[in-house]
Amino acid sequence: MSALKNDLLLRTLRGETTERVPVWMMRQAGRYLPQYMQLREKYGFFERVQTPELAAAITIQPIDIIGVDAAILFSDILVVPQAMGLEVQLIESKGPILPEPIKTKNDLKRIRVPDVHETLQYVFDAIKLTKQELNDRVPLIGFAGAPWTILCYMVQGKGSKTFDEAKAFCYTQPELAHQLLQMITDTTIAYLKAQVKAGVDTVQIFDSWGGLLSKDDFENISLKYIRQIVDALKDETLVIIFAKGAWHSLESMAATGAHGLGIDWCIEPEVARKFAGNNIILQGNFDPAKLLSPIPVIEKEVKHMLKGFGKGNYIANLGHGILPNVPVDHAKAFVDTVRNYNLG
Amino acid sequence: MSALKNDLLLRTLRGETTERVPVWMMRQAGRYLPQYMQLREKYGFFERVQTPELAAAITIQPIDIIGVDAAILFSDILVVPQAMGLEVQLIESKGPILPEPIKTKNDLKRIRVPDVHETLQYVFDAIKLTKQELNDRVPLIGFAGAPWTILCYMVQGKGSKTFDEAKAFCYTQPELAHQLLQMITDTTIAYLKAQVKAGVDTVQIFDSWGGLLSKDDFENISLKYIRQIVDALKDETLVIIFAKGAWHSLESMAATGAHGLGIDWCIEPEVARKFAGNNIILQGNFDPAKLLSPIPVIEKEVKHMLKGFGKGNYIANLGHGILPNVPVDHAKAFVDTVRNYNLG
Repeated sequence: MSALKNDLLLRTLRGETTERVPVWMMRQAGRYLPQYMQLREKYGFFERVQTPELAAAITIQPIDIIGVDAAILFSDILVVPQAMGLEVQLIESKGPILPEPIKTKNDLKRIRVPDVHETLQYVFDAIKLTKQELNDRVPLIGFAGAPWTILCYMVQGKGSKTFDEAKAFCYTQPELAHQLLQMITDTTIAYLKAQVKAGVDTVQIFDSWGGLLSKDDFENISLKYIRQIVDALKDETLVIIFAKGAWHSLESMAATGAHGLGIDWCIEPEVARKFAGNNIILQGNFDPAKLLSPIPVIEKEVKHMLKGFGKGNYIANLGHGILPNVPVDHAKAFVDTVRNYNLG
Repeated sequence: MSALKNDLLLRTLRGETTERVPVWMMRQAGRYLPQYMQLREKYGFFERVQTPELAAAITIQPIDIIGVDAAILFSDILVVPQAMGLEVQLIESKGPILPEPIKTKNDLKRIRVPDVHETLQYVFDAIKLTKQELNDRVPLIGFAGAPWTILCYMVQGKGSKTFDEAKAFCYTQPELAHQLLQMITDTTIAYLKAQVKAGVDTVQIFDSWGGLLSKDDFENISLKYIRQIVDALKDETLVIIFAKGAWHSLESMAATGAHGLGIDWCIEPEVARKFAGNNIILQGNFDPAKLLSPIPVIEKEVKHMLKGFGKGNYIANLGHGILPNVPVDHAKAFVDTVRNYNLG
């Protein structure tokens, strides 16, 4: 293992005191970058995800262009249901479609806990290539969806505001739901372990739809399985959990032993710290839509955010993925304001 | 004013001790009812909204079929932007489209604060007819959207998960945004006052997209205007505020002097009570998707909810509108469990 030139993110996640706050942005390798759009015009979504050279090139773009302190592998949480045997279509700007979703006991026979090296080797190849091309400049973040969020797509078959069919599946066929959640969990653990082996420096678990559940349901349907993943990974790598909207469970999420906890902009830094306690690194929480503001407003608001989090135990990020219509210099203003903060 | 046979809702909102918990459901006059679907096949959306006989018939359906303790006028929050001069199309099961949204200073010239009696008289006629046909069985709830939620549609021009264009409008053109919010507020105050004059017994302000804002933005963009509406209405009628997802501002919302506060299922009753204090009636908060569960599960979960809220100062409701795919007997099980609770 060679030493990283910039290991701010990892040192922060380990609880060490750092010279400044590290910063990266969810979906930083994405549609707001013209360089990404050029590749998007030439190659289909899964072509970009499954071709290590393309995935690596896209992953590295924001390091060169925006100057973030970490790279996050260009991929998608839905490669997991795909590897489990479900067809996933990703129609650009229309969101994912799973044409044959899981609805019954019989449907479960169509999927399996796969050998991740047989089904997802392209991810591990992309990680190796990215690490090589990053040349130790910054750490590489791996990721997977939380089992509940993956179930949402596997059952609903597409995006949704409420994921009511996914919830109904859990409420009406709880045994089947837990069977499916366990299969996703087992796949995800093997998948993340193999990501670590391939070279990622830390992993983030995205529970994009955790906030649709009540506190009790979040514990029973989501956190129970996230906990298994954290347990299996936390001694091998640094683990960040991000369950958007699940403010009510910050305390329980912190208790999993994860190293970092993502939060969205609907909770104030001081309140999040109170709920999560002092033994975990917080990550977030700039409103992605606020990057559409004029640059002086962005600078002012980012400083306000940084002040709210105080010094240490903190990674600057957005509260959700960057929006496609954000100007590149606005994204850069966000990152620069963080990078210059402690020096200012 | 004649005495209502069932005034549980009003007595609860006034803070009186009642013999049992009142219950109604957001969107109770809606697509899960076959009787509603029959009228929906024959008449277009705005035909149903604008024809007092149809609106009254639809409003009364859940009183007869489900046995709720209050009627809520069948209408739509988007009649306000329509009255202000914007075209609103409501394509069934596709959501609203406003083909010429507000984007610039110039666009503001296309709208006005209207004379509500000129533009929305059909609503007041529907209220009068509904009151007559309800024959004092239960109270009638009037409603309007919160100014921020209305702005969302007026600027974004359609539904959205993030309402990023509406937010960007507020962040990049704050003066214009506040001008628009004030126009919506002025219209809404006149509209709700006329609803009260026409006969509604209480009004609810729906801030469906309040939860997309940070606490600071919610105060500045949304609550500031809700406060004006509450101030103008609270001495004339009983006022309920429902800002979905805005758990962080329950204390500030309670401080407006509103009588009731709606909450969603992502906050536990005890926590909501702690945040909101003891001087306001709470309303909510059953997860609408949970009505897709088997009836015994619904009964168990409703009792759990009722226990959580404790006795008094509480109106049973869902945490958002009822879903179109809920079986009628499941909706009835929800209502019956509440109605029988204190007797059981």
